[in-house]
Amino acid sequence: RKYTIAVVPGDGIGVEVMPSALRCLEVASHQFGFTLEFRHFDWASCTYYNKHGSMLPKDWKPLLQACDAILFGAVGDPATVPDHISLWGSILTFRREFDQYINLRPCRLMPGVPSPLAGREPGSIDFITVRENTEGEYSSIGGKIFEGTERETVIQNTVFTRIGVDRVIRYAFEQARGRKAKKLTSATKSNGISITMPYWDERVAEIAKEYPDIEVEKYHIDILCAHFVQRPHTFDVVVGSNLFGDILSDLGPACTGTIGIAPSANLNPTAKGGKGDKEWMPSLFEPVHGSAPDIAGKGTANPVGMIWAAQMMIEHLGEKQAADAMLHAIEKVLGAEKAGGLSNVLTPDMGGKGDTESLGKAVENELANI
Amino acid sequence: RKYTIAVVPGDGIGVEVMPSALRCLEVASHQFGFTLEFRHFDWASCTYYNKHGSMLPKDWKPLLQACDAILFGAVGDPATVPDHISLWGSILTFRREFDQYINLRPCRLMPGVPSPLAGREPGSIDFITVRENTEGEYSSIGGKIFEGTERETVIQNTVFTRIGVDRVIRYAFEQARGRKAKKLTSATKSNGISITMPYWDERVAEIAKEYPDIEVEKYHIDILCAHFVQRPHTFDVVVGSNLFGDILSDLGPACTGTIGIAPSANLNPTAKGGKGDKEWMPSLFEPVHGSAPDIAGKGTANPVGMIWAAQMMIEHLGEKQAADAMLHAIEKVLGAEKAGGLSNVLTPDMGGKGDTESLGKAVENELANI
Ligand SMILES: CC(C)[C@H](C(=O)O)[C@@H](O)C(=O)O
Ligand SMILES: CC(C)[C@H](C(=O)O)[C@@H](O)C(=O)O
Repeated sequence: RKYTIAVVPGDGIGVEVMPSALRCLEVASHQFGFTLEFRHFDWASCTYYNKHGSMLPKDWKPLLQACDAILFGAVGDPATVPDHISLWGSILTFRREFDQYINLRPCRLMPGVPSPLAGREPGSIDFITVRENTEGEYSSIGGKIFEGTERETVIQNTVFTRIGVDRVIRYAFEQARGRKAKKLTSATKSNGISITMPYWDERVAEIAKEYPDIEVEKYHIDILCAHFVQRPHTFDVVVGSNLFGDILSDLGPACTGTIGIAPSANLNPTAKGGKGDKEWMPSLFEPVHGSAPDIAGKGTANPVGMIWAAQMMIEHLGEKQAADAMLHAIEKVLGAEKAGGLSNVLTPDMGGKGDTESLGKAVENELANI
Repeated sequence: RKYTIAVVPGDGIGVEVMPSALRCLEVASHQFGFTLEFRHFDWASCTYYNKHGSMLPKDWKPLLQACDAILFGAVGDPATVPDHISLWGSILTFRREFDQYINLRPCRLMPGVPSPLAGREPGSIDFITVRENTEGEYSSIGGKIFEGTERETVIQNTVFTRIGVDRVIRYAFEQARGRKAKKLTSATKSNGISITMPYWDERVAEIAKEYPDIEVEKYHIDILCAHFVQRPHTFDVVVGSNLFGDILSDLGPACTGTIGIAPSANLNPTAKGGKGDKEWMPSLFEPVHGSAPDIAGKGTANPVGMIWAAQMMIEHLGEKQAADAMLHAIEKVLGAEKAGGLSNVLTPDMGGKGDTESLGKAVENELANI
């Protein structure tokens, strides 16, 4: 078993957390007898943009298609490149071009991680968000008219396609079927957004007929965000559009303590063929957090989101045992540490006095001792 | 001083919480020497719709324009009328037709209200959200093509106008100027929503030049929701588009304990003339919560959001002293009660064993004893 991995650290703390993930992957591959070949790329970063005037080289696509999967850090440096240029020039292009139509993010209250919510026990929050990842509010079509005048008007289209909506909803139902609670929550806003969101509701109701074993509920996004804070323990699988999924998959991890530990899989579950094929569409794995310019350069970023993303990657590649071991190692390290200013291992976002290196190393050591 | 108030209870708990607000208003008007004339309307409700086939009578507009302000309960009964029909047929029509372009919602951690967040003191969270209330994501233009086929595509336009964006941003800056912290947080998503949201950012940056005394920060909506949970005490004035403002003004109150107490003012701050004028555009006051079909009919809905909305209304009408007294009465009642299952006055959403009547009555008595 040999896998070729595109390693794209990006900007800011993306560059800082990537080494920990790679070291953990190295250890896991030794322990479980498979081989990883890393191909490092410094593009898809503002650093690259500032040198070359574009986020990506001409041949980015075949370079990534030569790999089984993509491990991505984070991108963005708003001080030098506007966010919509850096993001649309990199991660959002990958999602669209490789039709990574599922964005899957687990949200779990881990042992040792202090939650901002009162009275929640580790394990009591444990759900996944399934986000549409290619269309919807991120359509990138629209424009401006009467520029610079009082009549100036800017329009952007939200685009929902039957194919795009159905496949993500069906995927979410399948996920729910594989879980204990067998419950699907759909995020909508059909009371206010009167064309696209009622359509979303219709498709959920239609597809629900294929899954009579799954309990379905729907909430408008405003009150659903409130429920994430008030009763996060009641969710199992939450499905949402590109924008709503984006919001919920930051809010969920925030409720469980820190966005620093949350991982994200950008999947094309129906990609055909494999690496090297002209039509191959690799999946991409990244932490939920961004490039975090405010803490970049300090070496204190939490590496767990990146390591957990790597964990999701090897699970996706079929290395289930190694993946389980990696998740177990993360949980063990977090659970062993005392959060709240006492730990020399945990990063500051978890109330620790450690740094990227100490926390990454701890997970690596835990893995090495299996 | 005599004011004519349109009273529109709507559906569900809207009907249940309205009487408490009216009684509090009665007491306040006696105490502070002004007169209120209530005009009761049973339309703008699904009950009315199910009888008449429309949410509103033909002459709804002059009827409301004959009033100084509108006191609104809540609307919606998804079991009999789809949400987008009931909402667009009532509250969203009022906002649009009366150009109530500001939706102002205070968010405050009140004494006695148990917050789902750990370790927050009453008063430590105290900000307002300023929401664009007429355009943006709630444009209601768009449509469906290739219906019923695999190519089915549904499009909805988000519309930002220079006039619409500028006036809400400027209003938010003015609010910030009148407050202690003098800080404005702008909600954006310009990294993903690549046309309308960068435009929003541009206008914020442009208008900020007129307010050098105000500290401005901007956050993408995903991470901003996370910050609401992680550091709600750092916000002062938060401004957002129609959708983002909607989300934040539910999430904020959820973080401070219960949506049941949060009020909302739908303002047209530049309306010309007054009641009876053909062009008069009255402002509307309502609780943040909806019609809550799940708890409707039980008499246990929290009336404080409705009472607080009435408080915002008389403040808007110029009865500052009475408004201060009403807010004080609310705070006093909440602070005097022991939340968490012990109070016979507080409603269940606050952990009490009381009901709409007991809590409403307590505020009314407090006011009567001034
Ligand atoms: C009921 C709904 C249409 C409305 C909105 O989204 O504006 C409500 O959530 C609100 O916040 O007033
Ligand atoms: C950086 C940004 C464009 C991106 C998104 O909105 O998709 C991020 O927030 C995410 O969740 O992956």
